[in-house]
Amino acid sequence: MRTELCDRFGVEHPIVGFTPSEHVAAAISRAGGLGVLGCVRYNDAADLEAALSWMDANTDGRPYGVDVVMPSTVPTEGTQLDLSEFIPAEHRAFVERTLADLGVPPLPDDERAGGGVLGWLHSVARSHVDVALKHPVRLIANALGSPPPDVIEQARACGVPVAALAGTAEHARRHVAKGVDVVVAQGYEAGGHTGEIASMVLLPEVVDAVGERVPVLAAGGIGSGRQIAAALALGAQGVWMGSAWLTTAEYTQGLAASATQQALLAATSADTVRSRIYSGKPARLLKTRWTQAWAAPDAPEPLPMPLQNILVSEAHERIQRSADPEVVAMPVGQIVGRLNEVRPVAEVVADLLAEFDRTLDRLHALR
Amino acid sequence: MRTELCDRFGVEHPIVGFTPSEHVAAAISRAGGLGVLGCVRYNDAADLEAALSWMDANTDGRPYGVDVVMPSTVPTEGTQLDLSEFIPAEHRAFVERTLADLGVPPLPDDERAGGGVLGWLHSVARSHVDVALKHPVRLIANALGSPPPDVIEQARACGVPVAALAGTAEHARRHVAKGVDVVVAQGYEAGGHTGEIASMVLLPEVVDAVGERVPVLAAGGIGSGRQIAAALALGAQGVWMGSAWLTTAEYTQGLAASATQQALLAATSADTVRSRIYSGKPARLLKTRWTQAWAAPDAPEPLPMPLQNILVSEAHERIQRSADPEVVAMPVGQIVGRLNEVRPVAEVVADLLAEFDRTLDRLHALR
Repeated sequence: MRTELCDRFGVEHPIVGFTPSEHVAAAISRAGGLGVLGCVRYNDAADLEAALSWMDANTDGRPYGVDVVMPSTVPTEGTQLDLSEFIPAEHRAFVERTLADLGVPPLPDDERAGGGVLGWLHSVARSHVDVALKHPVRLIANALGSPPPDVIEQARACGVPVAALAGTAEHARRHVAKGVDVVVAQGYEAGGHTGEIASMVLLPEVVDAVGERVPVLAAGGIGSGRQIAAALALGAQGVWMGSAWLTTAEYTQGLAASATQQALLAATSADTVRSRIYSGKPARLLKTRWTQAWAAPDAPEPLPMPLQNILVSEAHERIQRSADPEVVAMPVGQIVGRLNEVRPVAEVVADLLAEFDRTLDRLHALR
Repeated sequence: MRTELCDRFGVEHPIVGFTPSEHVAAAISRAGGLGVLGCVRYNDAADLEAALSWMDANTDGRPYGVDVVMPSTVPTEGTQLDLSEFIPAEHRAFVERTLADLGVPPLPDDERAGGGVLGWLHSVARSHVDVALKHPVRLIANALGSPPPDVIEQARACGVPVAALAGTAEHARRHVAKGVDVVVAQGYEAGGHTGEIASMVLLPEVVDAVGERVPVLAAGGIGSGRQIAAALALGAQGVWMGSAWLTTAEYTQGLAASATQQALLAATSADTVRSRIYSGKPARLLKTRWTQAWAAPDAPEPLPMPLQNILVSEAHERIQRSADPEVVAMPVGQIVGRLNEVRPVAEVVADLLAEFDRTLDRLHALR
């Protein structure tokens, strides 16, 4: 399985793996794909610097990339304290009541809340880009559409291509007009922020819109070799996979996620929900007692981005610490139904390649 | 493109085409696919008898099938008048007010309402099966899951296989356990009644669940040769296409649908909505001023099946007569974005086959 993307990024297989874990990202790169480290959780640039230095030492010289969360237009930034004033008391009360109902304990007295995820703040995302460009990264992906023009310029000056997610063909056209080098077509079935058009329809539309100018990666619903073959049939140059790595053995190195993994292993493809409760924009999450509480008739409407994430960030921390598989706040795609055992990244990649080959044999025999 | 399905149904291409138009169904069969005539609109068995006799005379001896809408369990049936008593006055008032707001005129004084679509009534659906089995039909598909056991028996006694739609792998397992011969995996992106799992994820799940016992057809998001190749890569034995035929030249023969076609030709893949307003169960429809009115904050919750269809059936008739492309009540899938010109069925099929071949060539070159 070789496409032009392989030459462009110097990878063996056109499989791009997004993950918040540097252990997983490095393993994906070592397995011949392009590991892409999600930076949004690094509030402190020094921590990202350390993670990327670790990647440099643990990727056997293979290429890797990073993913930031950066709006195209620079928002008016306040400190978290400023923004907090816009959160209605009703919403805070609902979160507290729900956590109590679900048996999620408060944080220990000696630990104050971590301050939430700040990576969506423009200044923090810029620090991620600055840090990343000091390392041999081969791709900067932005999870929120086109990055600002000067960031694209900054990356280009370092010879690093920029990718952006698109949920419609029109998004994709705008990204390319702004100078984006790679478009990730993110279908409805994907985990995290996602639109309403499913991959089967979205992907060929995006390819027809921009595929002659830039490579298109398929995101959403990809977790097997058959799905990679389908994505390439639809015109993608490669795949962007996120959810599939959440149940790899490497994922729990450095991240306490075993309750989350238990929940993911048990879930079927029907056990996700697309909701604004994670960030304020529609994102697909694992359906758990936490998401169900927000779907109840007495629940308030989620707040707009970035207020919703500020509202729930301490709740996410408490939920994570409480380690209850029934109460999890986790973005994941519908492919979660196929995640049924914990396996090393290398084994996942080997299976993808083998099934892809069998699929092409099967298709070839139809002629 | 030949799969086992071709031998099973005696067709040249594994393309099953669902349509409410006998002209389209016959043209699909003549083009080497399996045309499947939707029966739900035939309130009178004699009309269906006439349509199938016409098909017998116009399919050049090629195979065709029918599609009925039949719940697995026999509901308590009343006449439409009985059921009407359960429709709240608030709902009736909303429909009247909305039609007035949208400029949809009442029916002419000399025409009373047609009585709505009765095909979802068990007795009427059974009459469809009885009529169909007197013709050389090669498939009876049921748009509402498994048909009742005795209907499966009745079809089997005539040597006619039965197909059922499945929105989850569990649906598919139940269908096969009840004796269904062909499973149609209907993804989220499909038009009409549909679930929440997108084709990219649903299809391989259904194939893994039942594919060794029965052929699986891919429905939802199929409108090009690339999408057929993707569906076969995912393990389908063939495709089930519905929306793609709505803009064929043959579709307007015998059905006044030009305003609907205009609306479909103009729509993008983002211009559909999944809603309960058509029948009471979630169904994907073209997004128009009619569906938007039901999404407004002052709109009532749609009623359960079958009450919702009784509530809106006269409205559908009025909307159809008013022929305003901005006010249309039409089930269609996200593939509507690819329907941009009116073409004969034979040309649509020829393009599907040619693009499928080019796609396989492209995939082959990746090895």
